[in-house]
Amino acid sequence: MSLKLYFSPGACSFVPHVLLEMSGAAFEPSMVKLHKGEQNSDEYKAINPRGQVPVLVNNGQPITQILAIVLHLDQVFPQAHFLPTEPMARAQALSTLAWMNNTVHPTFTHIFMPQKFSDQPEAQAAMKTYNTQLFRGMLGELQTLVLAAAAKGQTWLTGEHFSPLDAYSLTLTRWGTIAGIAPEAHPDLWAFVQKVAAVPAVARVIERERLQLDMGRPAA
Amino acid sequence: MSLKLYFSPGACSFVPHVLLEMSGAAFEPSMVKLHKGEQNSDEYKAINPRGQVPVLVNNGQPITQILAIVLHLDQVFPQAHFLPTEPMARAQALSTLAWMNNTVHPTFTHIFMPQKFSDQPEAQAAMKTYNTQLFRGMLGELQTLVLAAAAKGQTWLTGEHFSPLDAYSLTLTRWGTIAGIAPEAHPDLWAFVQKVAAVPAVARVIERERLQLDMGRPAA
Ligand SMILES: N[C@@H](CCC(=O)N[C@@H](CS)C(=O)NCC(=O)O)C(=O)O
Ligand SMILES: N[C@@H](CCC(=O)N[C@@H](CS)C(=O)NCC(=O)O)C(=O)O
Repeated sequence: MSLKLYFSPGACSFVPHVLLEMSGAAFEPSMVKLHKGEQNSDEYKAINPRGQVPVLVNNGQPITQILAIVLHLDQVFPQAHFLPTEPMARAQALSTLAWMNNTVHPTFTHIFMPQKFSDQPEAQAAMKTYNTQLFRGMLGELQTLVLAAAAKGQTWLTGEHFSPLDAYSLTLTRWGTIAGIAPEAHPDLWAFVQKVAAVPAVARVIERERLQLDMGRPAA
Repeated sequence: MSLKLYFSPGACSFVPHVLLEMSGAAFEPSMVKLHKGEQNSDEYKAINPRGQVPVLVNNGQPITQILAIVLHLDQVFPQAHFLPTEPMARAQALSTLAWMNNTVHPTFTHIFMPQKFSDQPEAQAAMKTYNTQLFRGMLGELQTLVLAAAAKGQTWLTGEHFSPLDAYSLTLTRWGTIAGIAPEAHPDLWAFVQKVAAVPAVARVIERERLQLDMGRPAA
């Protein structure tokens, strides 16, 4: 198995980046500078014609889409317990992961890259405002999930094992701070994200990507 | 196992509806009238607080999100071969399924329910126009996938077995006709969708949901 991950610092590629780091397997992290438009180069489009990160290349075969990458890593590293195996627990984990990926994540895209959804500046401004409110509500839902997991005595969102949901929570909360949502607005979520950040493999990825968790504050 | 599916005619719930019908297992289809707002009733929100279809209830436990439902059905009905088991083929199938679910499907939502993304009428109109063009391009991508599968001698998008991707293709192409994209704009996709519609289990679901495939033409 030869593994290469195309990632961009602070992007959603953080989720598979963390899982790979946790797997203990050797992998090659390859940085794509989105702000320089590197995702639109011919070279990169040969790997992912849709011009996005993440891409996991396993033995020369590119896999796109976080859901597919995460499920693939779960299949090739069963000992890492990235997802529950019991059918109902697994279904609930995948349901929340799908919601993060198809609802919460694109809500932020409407704020950060509104030009993906309209070419009209006024419409872009309207979407930014509206989706910032939606995003705030979704971070509230995420905090409710964190509290529900804690109430059941779980260390992580899906149980005793660290999962892609925990990594995604960090990314989404950090994106909230870019959208002007102070992390203190959701104190239990923020405390949870700090616990996630302190996991050694996560801390190594944060270091490699040079991430600051709260983007609303000047870097120290 | 007791299975109940909350669905709405013509909605994305068509995908799990078809898989359940194909499984041969007994299940209870329960109709939710979205145009009457039934998804927002207290009764329905107790099942899915996010007020959407589909929901699969297995032994009393609700599962939301198409991806989670499809993967659950694949796990409980392995003999149906809803998804490939070989790791790389499985990853590619899940990648396309995730793309349909988090990109193509929400692009149609911007056309059909723009009020989900902005409360400003002008912004809604701008999104409708812009996303109709995007949706047209995505149906073109889908047709490319159909042609690539045929070129490899495959009967269906993932190989020899009918998969959720085939069912989703029908739904997305049908939605295109609601958005004013004539099915003849993508003749190979349209021919493929008609092949999908002719599968007996699919035909039974089309009958139960009383679906017309081309919504741009008056019903016969
Ligand atoms: N649906 C994709 C979304 C990937 C995505 O949104 N990638 C963003 C970074 S978070 C990207 O590459 N954006 C650059 C661009 O679209 O130009 C997935 O789940 O992998
Ligand atoms: N991400 C969800 C999307 C579900 C969805 O979009 N459902 C639509 C029908 S296609 C719905 O229930 N809409 C009603 C509403 O939002 O009020 C999934 O994959 O299951």
